[in-house]
Amino acid sequence: MKQNSNYDIRKRTDYENIMREFGIEEIDKLQSEIEQDIFFFRRKIVIAHRDFNKILERAKNGLDWAIISGRGPSNDLHIGHLIVFELILELQKKFGCKFFMPLSDDEKYVFRKLKALNNETYKLAIENAIDIFALGFEPDNVHCYLSSETPRIYRLALDFSVNLTYNSIKAALGFSGEENAGTVFYSCVQAAHILQPSVDYNFPVVVPIGLDQDVYMRLTRDVAGKRKITAPASIYVKYLKGLTGGPMSSSIPETCVYIRDDKKTIKKKIMSALTGGRDTLKEQKELGGVPEKCTVFNWFETFFIRDDEELEQIRTQCKNGKLICGKDCKPKLYNLVCEYQDKFTLKRKEVIKNLEKYFDHPIKPEILEQIRCT
Amino acid sequence: MKQNSNYDIRKRTDYENIMREFGIEEIDKLQSEIEQDIFFFRRKIVIAHRDFNKILERAKNGLDWAIISGRGPSNDLHIGHLIVFELILELQKKFGCKFFMPLSDDEKYVFRKLKALNNETYKLAIENAIDIFALGFEPDNVHCYLSSETPRIYRLALDFSVNLTYNSIKAALGFSGEENAGTVFYSCVQAAHILQPSVDYNFPVVVPIGLDQDVYMRLTRDVAGKRKITAPASIYVKYLKGLTGGPMSSSIPETCVYIRDDKKTIKKKIMSALTGGRDTLKEQKELGGVPEKCTVFNWFETFFIRDDEELEQIRTQCKNGKLICGKDCKPKLYNLVCEYQDKFTLKRKEVIKNLEKYFDHPIKPEILEQIRCT
Repeated sequence: MKQNSNYDIRKRTDYENIMREFGIEEIDKLQSEIEQDIFFFRRKIVIAHRDFNKILERAKNGLDWAIISGRGPSNDLHIGHLIVFELILELQKKFGCKFFMPLSDDEKYVFRKLKALNNETYKLAIENAIDIFALGFEPDNVHCYLSSETPRIYRLALDFSVNLTYNSIKAALGFSGEENAGTVFYSCVQAAHILQPSVDYNFPVVVPIGLDQDVYMRLTRDVAGKRKITAPASIYVKYLKGLTGGPMSSSIPETCVYIRDDKKTIKKKIMSALTGGRDTLKEQKELGGVPEKCTVFNWFETFFIRDDEELEQIRTQCKNGKLICGKDCKPKLYNLVCEYQDKFTLKRKEVIKNLEKYFDHPIKPEILEQIRCT
Repeated sequence: MKQNSNYDIRKRTDYENIMREFGIEEIDKLQSEIEQDIFFFRRKIVIAHRDFNKILERAKNGLDWAIISGRGPSNDLHIGHLIVFELILELQKKFGCKFFMPLSDDEKYVFRKLKALNNETYKLAIENAIDIFALGFEPDNVHCYLSSETPRIYRLALDFSVNLTYNSIKAALGFSGEENAGTVFYSCVQAAHILQPSVDYNFPVVVPIGLDQDVYMRLTRDVAGKRKITAPASIYVKYLKGLTGGPMSSSIPETCVYIRDDKKTIKKKIMSALTGGRDTLKEQKELGGVPEKCTVFNWFETFFIRDDEELEQIRTQCKNGKLICGKDCKPKLYNLVCEYQDKFTLKRKEVIKNLEKYFDHPIKPEILEQIRCT
């Protein structure tokens, strides 16, 4: 395995090599039923998996399983982040599986994205959770918790900590030794997040993640093997393209739409997006656009247009020079994003009303009050 | 600093070098009052300190401070282990300070001295605590807790984990990289044990330890410095000699008397002890014994004979050939050890009655019942 310093492994984009190296299977080899029913499988946004066939086998036999996917509290929740949660919603709708959502404030803290763990970061974590639940999650199907506030997770992490050597963590994450001890232990905490539903509820789990995060899966599968716990399955999700053409990045505002951007900002970002359009209107009409290179089309395909026929119509019309980016597609995307945001804003109120029901632990009363008063 | 692999640093016995390297002060430089009043200071069993003068200064001004000293659950609690706790009792008697006692089941687990953390190890930890309290501790002055069962400690350890790099822990403890992640994080847990009284109660702390364990103090003082917490003071305690002449070791039964040895075993061990006696009775009478080389005399001096005059009398009589090891000193030590054990066995019952009062968290009811029924 290639050694990388400073977590560069997380930035690897040579997906095919990663898949070959670590025995991840292409999604084509799964049974076809799921591809019909679930948008993100049908559109091949879910590109690969490991052991997800075993989970589907359980589902067929009416046996329980769970999805686990975390969220580190931050101010930058954007639409790219939401793909995983929309996928989880679809899987829940089809299979009725439970969703475990650790709010990994500890991860953000040890990797120095949060300077402290205090009431402010606690509130931020809860607010992120509200935004995610507002996508349509029902409280009964969700186990959410703040990782640093959940003793059970630290007890499990301690339990698992004897099963991972420093050298194995170093190799997987490309550590140099100058990292703090919290980042080393965090691999154990992450294993605890992933395996807790199996240990405490006997639910085999599936983790939807990016291929570049597979290192964590491999560390956790090592632990599971040593502890005779069912190995966690994983499904690998493609990222939404950034609006400027490169990767989407939370720290580069023009590449993404934050969930709380105002309409004016959203408009500006989308109207400036890189498309597959030609240099002139004349060329566009004569040669047609290139949807494969277009970030707006990528957003349609990956997220906003669920109807296959409608999408194909746009693709054809674009190629035939019938669509003009700034007049047709960008305003269409803008409207779809606004609609999505409006729906979500409405739902937030309902979520806040039932907030405690989503959590595995009580929410600090002063934080709950602050949230309900704003 | 000399690099050692496999925690060899903990076995260093070149005390003078350690003291010079790390700026630990000899005990002679402390004010004399404590040397009069406290047995273990007077006898120079406490050989050195760091910042204990500051603690004494606080005491003079009527300000609070605390002692912290842990105990990893094990079957091998022996008289050598008890010196520290007897010292703490004396300090409490003089200064009324609080005593924090983490039962570090997590340490034993990550360093693989316990195979699992379960009800059995929980009970063992509580039983060790009972044995220690039976030395004469009052519940009001004690904060005891099982480390793995105390979320507050893990929260603090997480907090502190950003202030210790892997490399600094590696250098201090002589790690190779093949150690498990739990041992790396344990330095943070230990810092949490030591600093919790300062963080949560505003008590500056003193830690009584062996000089060979000073590495942990230095790591924790690093953390304290970075977090603007009062640096923990330390006092360094000499070990009791092993009965066979070498160091006392829990894993070599003939070197020590376990607190639960039966009288027959105690007799056998003491009667086989290495003394400073001569080869023949004739030589003994003519040349006298050598108390400085005698393990029995070491036990008198370090622990069992508190009266200075009585001790000097034994020393003189021995040197003058008036005492015969097997007839005089060994039976005397045997009687003193038995008396000590009897007193302690009596006290255990009282401790068990008030057990919950010593603990900062509830004791599992099933364990409490088991303990009360045996």
